[in-house]
Amino acid sequence: MNRRMVIYRVGQILELEAALLLIPLAVAAIYFEWKIVICFVVSAAAALVPGVLMRLIFKPDNQMMYAKEGFSIVTLAWILLSVFGALPFFLSREIPNYIDAFFETVSGFTTTGASLVPDVERLSHGILFWRSFTHWIGGMGILVLIMAIVPTDSGRSMHIMRAEMPGPVVGKLVPKLKDTAKILYFIYIALTILETVILLIGGMPLFDSIVHALGTAGTGGYGIKGDSIGGYNHFLQWVIAVFMVLFGINFNLYYLLIMKKFNAALKNTELWLFLGMIVVSTTVITADIFKVYGNFGDSLRNSFFQVTSIMSTTGYSTADFDKWPVLSKDLIFVLMFVGGCAGSTAGGLKISRILIMAKTVINDIRQQLHPRSVTSLKIDGKPVDKNTIHRVSTYFLLYIFIIVAVFLLISFEPFGFETNLSAAVSCFNNVGPGFAVVGPAGNYSAYSDFSTIILSIAMLLGRLEIFPLILAFNPSNWVNKNK
Amino acid sequence: MNRRMVIYRVGQILELEAALLLIPLAVAAIYFEWKIVICFVVSAAAALVPGVLMRLIFKPDNQMMYAKEGFSIVTLAWILLSVFGALPFFLSREIPNYIDAFFETVSGFTTTGASLVPDVERLSHGILFWRSFTHWIGGMGILVLIMAIVPTDSGRSMHIMRAEMPGPVVGKLVPKLKDTAKILYFIYIALTILETVILLIGGMPLFDSIVHALGTAGTGGYGIKGDSIGGYNHFLQWVIAVFMVLFGINFNLYYLLIMKKFNAALKNTELWLFLGMIVVSTTVITADIFKVYGNFGDSLRNSFFQVTSIMSTTGYSTADFDKWPVLSKDLIFVLMFVGGCAGSTAGGLKISRILIMAKTVINDIRQQLHPRSVTSLKIDGKPVDKNTIHRVSTYFLLYIFIIVAVFLLISFEPFGFETNLSAAVSCFNNVGPGFAVVGPAGNYSAYSDFSTIILSIAMLLGRLEIFPLILAFNPSNWVNKNK
Repeated sequence: MNRRMVIYRVGQILELEAALLLIPLAVAAIYFEWKIVICFVVSAAAALVPGVLMRLIFKPDNQMMYAKEGFSIVTLAWILLSVFGALPFFLSREIPNYIDAFFETVSGFTTTGASLVPDVERLSHGILFWRSFTHWIGGMGILVLIMAIVPTDSGRSMHIMRAEMPGPVVGKLVPKLKDTAKILYFIYIALTILETVILLIGGMPLFDSIVHALGTAGTGGYGIKGDSIGGYNHFLQWVIAVFMVLFGINFNLYYLLIMKKFNAALKNTELWLFLGMIVVSTTVITADIFKVYGNFGDSLRNSFFQVTSIMSTTGYSTADFDKWPVLSKDLIFVLMFVGGCAGSTAGGLKISRILIMAKTVINDIRQQLHPRSVTSLKIDGKPVDKNTIHRVSTYFLLYIFIIVAVFLLISFEPFGFETNLSAAVSCFNNVGPGFAVVGPAGNYSAYSDFSTIILSIAMLLGRLEIFPLILAFNPSNWVNKNK
Repeated sequence: MNRRMVIYRVGQILELEAALLLIPLAVAAIYFEWKIVICFVVSAAAALVPGVLMRLIFKPDNQMMYAKEGFSIVTLAWILLSVFGALPFFLSREIPNYIDAFFETVSGFTTTGASLVPDVERLSHGILFWRSFTHWIGGMGILVLIMAIVPTDSGRSMHIMRAEMPGPVVGKLVPKLKDTAKILYFIYIALTILETVILLIGGMPLFDSIVHALGTAGTGGYGIKGDSIGGYNHFLQWVIAVFMVLFGINFNLYYLLIMKKFNAALKNTELWLFLGMIVVSTTVITADIFKVYGNFGDSLRNSFFQVTSIMSTTGYSTADFDKWPVLSKDLIFVLMFVGGCAGSTAGGLKISRILIMAKTVINDIRQQLHPRSVTSLKIDGKPVDKNTIHRVSTYFLLYIFIIVAVFLLISFEPFGFETNLSAAVSCFNNVGPGFAVVGPAGNYSAYSDFSTIILSIAMLLGRLEIFPLILAFNPSNWVNKNK
């Protein structure tokens, strides 16, 4: 493996993180939180120094990059990002245990939004901003960001893109990868600003609007109030719910809309399946929770908000679904697995994988009934190649194995079956809240350090879609001859 | 499809059921339960009449049988077996609701052992015997039985065998299928008698010994006491636990032992994985429940019994694992999915499928690290063909989809998340008990008729391993030209 190259690239990313830390620093300064400003200065310096050293010392002789290098860069980058990103929480003593601070940061970058802060309203503005900003950075991916802004090499970065972008297939929008990254970030920024403005118009304070827009955009879910979004007016709740849907959609579709290819954008099966599942789930839950709220408006709003929040794997809440009737709760549990569309900032299995798996099963049944017929699997009219189908099946096997492993590893905790299972599922799918102890009204602070680390790994596995981490940690990568 | 052939064969099976009903009839007579005797007479007649008619009227012109016919025969046979097998429960008023009686019978034949009888000790001897006898019939399979005893055609029945025998690959022990069926039943009967004798020696009354041997052999789990096996002495508990392990092992291995091919029998990866998982799970749970029982002996015995009961998908219990510490409970939940070895009477996913899936994943990771390497998947030194690998993956997808569907469909019930999820998982994997309301100390009587039917379908899907039912109910089979 080209180790120099890997370390060089990771160094670059740490430098970028140091730069990004200046933004929450500025926010802290605006609110005269000088102690917090100092924490950010120290954290930025802590990320900058190794970053610069790694970049200068390990300048690679050749830019060769294969899958191995790509996976290793992405994995190391995400781990180190979290290691340094946890410093502000820890140094400010707002999360006094470093492992807890690490969990909170991984949860932020992976856009999970599982928090172990018992009372978020006591956090400073600078820290609250950084918390939500990690969602925004992690949502579209920091390596995609570096691709968009740093003038680097000649398009050997497809492996990085593939490792960081969610979904079974990653396509380039335009021939040059760098331009693809720019377009994605342009759409991402535009939608984030749009949400901020609409929230402002709806009467939300400026700080709250920005922070919630960042959290929605990354489909993260860190809020700044004890009751998440429940305390804001109904209009604001609807706005956030709609944007959670928008950020759960494949960004390629927005590009097609910009290019005025309306037909191509609307002929997307994954999109309609995603919207269809939202409509059906919202309808079922609205009917089910009608007995709780007693009127149609509240039932529909809370149902729609929670469904979009779970399906986009954001994790904001306007109601404690842990207390809802069992049908709604069971349905929400299933939706935690589903997730949003490929190529969005959402987590979960992704609709397109479910679509491919469902079609595989149907094709197989057809094949058994008519052994001589030849069936090819098509999505949006285009055939899906055998390799992709195989990879999706394997991904699903690993996906279930990992949920089982995480569930068993955190079973040493004294909590019940429901807490442990929902925590494993919710963290791995980057949703955030689970049931019971870790429900929307609870948090993850009761978990031991051991389980906190396991759940952090689960969140990283979920965000990077398993393979990069496994491949990066394969020892044969690191003991190889060529440096 | 050769419909005449399908109906003819199903008729044969109903005749066989009528004959089998004479055995519990005799048991009822021994205990002077004359009312019950009459119920069995009526039930046997009810099965016999349509059976004879179907066989006489639909005598097929040709014996052609493809996969379609095989699947249809198995599916129809199992449904009709349960429809008529439910009559004794219903006619005797010991289970007054017919849908409940149907559930109890499906649960019996599929060797699930999920009961909705609140107080089994009030049932008559004839009914108790029939309940456990259904386990024994369903365990090895009634179509395999018919193959063994009825002088029929010339080996076109492989599709039937494949549809009824659990596991990813079904092999013939000897060239003639009829002889294979005979050998399997010979081993089955011998082991059942052996267990009965040992239980008798250990001090269990004759009736209890027979009934529990039938229930263990089929890996069913219907007991005759309110506390299942908990009230019997420790020796008897160990005996039943060991036999649960024995009936969870691939029967082909016993044949190899009989043939003195010891090396071949012991070189079976699935066997060692099965035994290894039992040892590890027993160790973990023993350590975990030590705090409950306070001594090593009781902890080990209860741990081993519950682990073998769940892994073999039998469902007998000596302790209420629903009240155990959460680690043990969580582990038991995971074991419910696993099941026993292929070619045994156990349910669940089967160890060999898990083995194939794990190797598929490992191979895929290796392939991604070394794209040019060629890896073939081997089990017991023999390569597994691509088709089998693909079928196992597809089976797993369907398996998870069905659990999700069953879980959601029974979520209309007022019970909690834990009850519904464990009921769906336990019934579909043919285990029996779940958690909370349906725990070892509870039963399924609280479920509505709707959910009772859903769970009955789940048990059948689990026992016949999904495909036969789906393929049999494909309408194109039944509207075809050739009768």
